[in-house]
Amino acid sequence: MELKEFQYPVSKELGDLEERFKDALVSRLPLVRNVASHILATRGKRYRPTLLLLSAKLNDGPSDRAVCAATVVELIHTATLIHDDSIDKSELRRGCPTINFKWDDDVSIAMGDVLYSKAFYILVKSQMYDVMDVLAEATHRMSVGEMLELERRNDVDVSEEDYLTMIGEKTASLISASCEIGAMLGESQDGMRTRFSKCGHALGLAFQITDDVFDFVGRERELGKNIGTDVSSGKFTLPVIAALRNAGSKDRTKMKNILTSGAQMDGKWDELLTLMREYEGIEYSKRRALAYAAEAKELLSPFEGSPYHLSLCSLVDYTVERRK
Amino acid sequence: MELKEFQYPVSKELGDLEERFKDALVSRLPLVRNVASHILATRGKRYRPTLLLLSAKLNDGPSDRAVCAATVVELIHTATLIHDDSIDKSELRRGCPTINFKWDDDVSIAMGDVLYSKAFYILVKSQMYDVMDVLAEATHRMSVGEMLELERRNDVDVSEEDYLTMIGEKTASLISASCEIGAMLGESQDGMRTRFSKCGHALGLAFQITDDVFDFVGRERELGKNIGTDVSSGKFTLPVIAALRNAGSKDRTKMKNILTSGAQMDGKWDELLTLMREYEGIEYSKRRALAYAAEAKELLSPFEGSPYHLSLCSLVDYTVERRK
Repeated sequence: MELKEFQYPVSKELGDLEERFKDALVSRLPLVRNVASHILATRGKRYRPTLLLLSAKLNDGPSDRAVCAATVVELIHTATLIHDDSIDKSELRRGCPTINFKWDDDVSIAMGDVLYSKAFYILVKSQMYDVMDVLAEATHRMSVGEMLELERRNDVDVSEEDYLTMIGEKTASLISASCEIGAMLGESQDGMRTRFSKCGHALGLAFQITDDVFDFVGRERELGKNIGTDVSSGKFTLPVIAALRNAGSKDRTKMKNILTSGAQMDGKWDELLTLMREYEGIEYSKRRALAYAAEAKELLSPFEGSPYHLSLCSLVDYTVERRK
Repeated sequence: MELKEFQYPVSKELGDLEERFKDALVSRLPLVRNVASHILATRGKRYRPTLLLLSAKLNDGPSDRAVCAATVVELIHTATLIHDDSIDKSELRRGCPTINFKWDDDVSIAMGDVLYSKAFYILVKSQMYDVMDVLAEATHRMSVGEMLELERRNDVDVSEEDYLTMIGEKTASLISASCEIGAMLGESQDGMRTRFSKCGHALGLAFQITDDVFDFVGRERELGKNIGTDVSSGKFTLPVIAALRNAGSKDRTKMKNILTSGAQMDGKWDELLTLMREYEGIEYSKRRALAYAAEAKELLSPFEGSPYHLSLCSLVDYTVERRK
């Protein structure tokens, strides 16, 4: 299952987006140009732009404004990844060295700021104030989510509720904003904007839970990034939270000891995985991701019959069934 | 000479600003609250807000919108300082530990993003789109300036022109934006907005050159930060550029050797200072700062006679005569 299978109804718009994204990275500074080339060479799946564009199509939204908004969303997403990789000390993303690894943290901080500010600059110059309203809030929520994650780092007692708040702010906010903006740009009926925002929120939770499962069971070559990094950096996600909850007191203590053993954890990775499987941490997380995906699809049901509805639903399925 | 001497005509507005700034930092997250308390405890001089408020007064601008814009400018400035300190690995600012030193670089990156995004969030919610236009551009220029500085790091052949571009983007852009916004919010005559933008640009250059001179001749206790850090981190500013240009070939080589000796430079700091004095690097820089300050004051001459004009001119003088 590949994302591009569901992108064809907006393939023209995605082509325009590539041009605009490239234009947004143009600079007379060699360092900015070099980092920009690296960003373009390691392009992502354009997941959020696809969502925005399909949501706009479903609501008869104008293509040009949707493409502009989708470009800005991808710029903000890219800026976030750059800052996140620096914070997480990640060395690999999409099978390529991260910017903090290829250059350094200084370049990562400054380049992330270049992209963030460019995103808002484009919105201001296009006078897309309603889009800016949604994205200013989403960007703020993402940064607060990052602080929440830093605050809860190394806390083995983090609850499922805390976790959902964290990924709701850090990940789902921009995915939700993408859907909401799509609906907003179109001639949508009353209440559609809220409906798409909710749909994006559920989808965003499904997306992040799936990503967090990959960190335990993914294949590094397929994912293009290292696995096991969440646990080793003290980020305890839903698979861990669920397994700890299901385990008996003895095994819970054993797992907590492994989780908090830091650099010495390496040798105990397999033991941790076995315990997590025994207590269905991964199984539970996959079920939750599927439930959120079903919720997202349910919210789209008024559009049944439209070809864009079919694409959007396939994209929701892809979110939880993908292998990278 | 203390800044507060010229702040009294806008003291009520500055009081309101403190309240709004504090409100903007309110959070339900303990980590955000802790970092926010640290930011509030190590408050700056409110230099940019003062400029904005005086510029608005001079143009009969409304206080409430000016206070809101000034708060946003201070948030953006604070975000920039936090990211800059992390990039520069600074340990001390305003006599207190920096956020990257007290917490870590991760918290610095995320907290800087929290403040940036909050700034734009406030502008969107207040529907101050014209202010956002100016600040989106200024913020982008600041981040590009940071990349330019990183690009030119360790380059002993950096020219005065390059340096002026660098500080023009990195520092003068926000100072210029502060003046421009002040004029824009008021009932200013045609051309006043451009005039204030130019005035702020000249003032911003004077401000940064003065700051760069401090890094050679300032007193650490008075400044509240370490000196000599520009050279040791490979940032060659106007005092160095001018001295290198004035020196004969032999002394120029000697200076370049010291400048590029990295960690071994410590013992040669006094030798470097002696050479810089001999070739008038500091003298020249101070002259340039005074010239830019005079340019800024000249641009304000249409307002002669107004008490706010007097305060603004005193603030320009303060910029180049201050000792911290």
